[in-house]
Amino acid sequence: MKSIKNNNSTILFNEACYPALNEYVKEGNFSNIFVLVDTNTHNNCLPYFLSNLVTNVTIEIIEIESGEINKTIDTCSGVWNALSELGADRKSLMINLGGGVVTDLGGFVACTFKRGIKYINVPTTLLSMVDASVGGKTGVDLGSLKNQVGVISSGDLVLIDTEFLKTLPKNQLDSGVAEMLKHGLITGDVYWNKMVNYLGNGENLDSLIHGSVIIKSEIVEKDPNENGLRKTLNYGHTLGHAIESYFLENPEKEELLHGEAIGVGMILATYISFKQLGFPEVKLHQIKDTFLKLFTKVEFEESDYDQIIDLLKYDKKNEHGNINFVLLNDIGDTKINCKVENSLILEAFNYYNS
Amino acid sequence: MKSIKNNNSTILFNEACYPALNEYVKEGNFSNIFVLVDTNTHNNCLPYFLSNLVTNVTIEIIEIESGEINKTIDTCSGVWNALSELGADRKSLMINLGGGVVTDLGGFVACTFKRGIKYINVPTTLLSMVDASVGGKTGVDLGSLKNQVGVISSGDLVLIDTEFLKTLPKNQLDSGVAEMLKHGLITGDVYWNKMVNYLGNGENLDSLIHGSVIIKSEIVEKDPNENGLRKTLNYGHTLGHAIESYFLENPEKEELLHGEAIGVGMILATYISFKQLGFPEVKLHQIKDTFLKLFTKVEFEESDYDQIIDLLKYDKKNEHGNINFVLLNDIGDTKINCKVENSLILEAFNYYNS
Repeated sequence: MKSIKNNNSTILFNEACYPALNEYVKEGNFSNIFVLVDTNTHNNCLPYFLSNLVTNVTIEIIEIESGEINKTIDTCSGVWNALSELGADRKSLMINLGGGVVTDLGGFVACTFKRGIKYINVPTTLLSMVDASVGGKTGVDLGSLKNQVGVISSGDLVLIDTEFLKTLPKNQLDSGVAEMLKHGLITGDVYWNKMVNYLGNGENLDSLIHGSVIIKSEIVEKDPNENGLRKTLNYGHTLGHAIESYFLENPEKEELLHGEAIGVGMILATYISFKQLGFPEVKLHQIKDTFLKLFTKVEFEESDYDQIIDLLKYDKKNEHGNINFVLLNDIGDTKINCKVENSLILEAFNYYNS
Repeated sequence: MKSIKNNNSTILFNEACYPALNEYVKEGNFSNIFVLVDTNTHNNCLPYFLSNLVTNVTIEIIEIESGEINKTIDTCSGVWNALSELGADRKSLMINLGGGVVTDLGGFVACTFKRGIKYINVPTTLLSMVDASVGGKTGVDLGSLKNQVGVISSGDLVLIDTEFLKTLPKNQLDSGVAEMLKHGLITGDVYWNKMVNYLGNGENLDSLIHGSVIIKSEIVEKDPNENGLRKTLNYGHTLGHAIESYFLENPEKEELLHGEAIGVGMILATYISFKQLGFPEVKLHQIKDTFLKLFTKVEFEESDYDQIIDLLKYDKKNEHGNINFVLLNDIGDTKINCKVENSLILEAFNYYNS
């Protein structure tokens, strides 16, 4: 699969990954290398990764706890301190080996340590391969508010080695599939149908991953600062993030996977699109069915809705106090900066529950 | 005094400040404005500043504790949370009104809140006017290690209004003078002598501030990423920062002013330059006398030296484990990336004490 250039970043796939990595490390004349892992990737991915990394430079491992709940400034402080204590300097290289938490947090730490050191992302989950790996949105959560703190920056290399997916639990894989379905919804029927087929009969995932990275990369290239087009990547995320935050901070709720939350968000956004912009009803039902095949239905209680709607005010797309939805006229035909009445959001939840 | 363009930033002086600010705010169509102050500038500078800011946009004040000891990630967390709770969005404007702690920390918070909002710096101390205001080094300390976490970024406007200096204690003013003396040492006898004259007979400070900003701005413009020339601005700072950190974290020592610490650092660096590069001895003594006129001599104990030298390993200019000094062949004739033996550092401390 062909490498992809995105801004200052080169995204490599499978067999192209390690020759490029080793060349980069050789040329870079680094003081030392820090590999950031979490508890899972330390066990499941690090030995394989290190067996492919050929260098005489000293390698240090920094481990963080896994899980979105640890994507915090406190975890960053731990990593910054570890870098300091282990002698990192401006010529150090950081390699983030893990899912979105590791690559988002690690990217932010690298960009801000001594005002920026070089880094490479090695996404190990499907979600991070097709989403977090491209576009340079580094960052961490602020309490339960997602990605409130961060910078836009890309590592020099992104290595997408689908070998890592073999270590991934099925529900984590599905979480990535949800973002890939989104890529279909915002770009058109062709990719959407490919993804639906994949769910039916297991079409080759590697080439779909490549396809999703190309889609995201092209969007981000045209609008790096999210002034317009890039907002379409937030389809389903306005409500999805609020739902994810709500379940994360509520002690009575079980934490949702990101894909699960934005899966609900996309069903809701499509219902709103149907009512507000005349999105085709047949496709609305197909989309609902597709996501409900992927994830079991999330249970909501009557008292949840107002609190979820209240969380929308923290959405990063908001401007001047307005909540901006991305909606669809049809699959592949997006409309950004849409205002939506709370009553319609409640109606959408009813549709989801029905 | 003429405005100065530096990268994406415009630096304005005195009477030019507020017309430009009000025009900028009018054009910016901001959701709301957040003024970051510390306990001192809240009392001494905010009323005057607000009386000059003409706008209908909602203004919220966020206050942090004053002092370098509060230039931490924890303080950032407090400000990020305050922004969130007060409804800041990507179209919010942040105005940092204060000394280097407020502008460095506030710049970092603004650059990282929702991956970056617009900000303006209004330095209120001499030190922040001539140093922190230019060049976009935002950041905070990590424990006692100075500026270990940050990004390179400049606010759209920097407003240098020397009216604020009237509220400044004399020792704080002297701290800024130390950086201005450094500008002389690294650029040449003309500016150095002007600064020495100022100390003797109080030559007009406003025009010297303008001169210092031009010097710093030209250096930063030529080498924004500190690959070479910009390192010269660290003259005296390698040992100066270590001394500052050491006094800050040691409960038995009284915290030093930044200018005080780098004043010592410059005497030490000049002695090392004299021994290692043949810097003229007469000028060495003049430099020592000049700084000792500005600040009373700092008391060191025998046991301090090794611990200060040990802190050098955290200097941000280090590469591959080497500590890189900036030295002088002569006033205005700098040499970067110099290695220095610890024994010569100890000798320099002896010279300082003598």
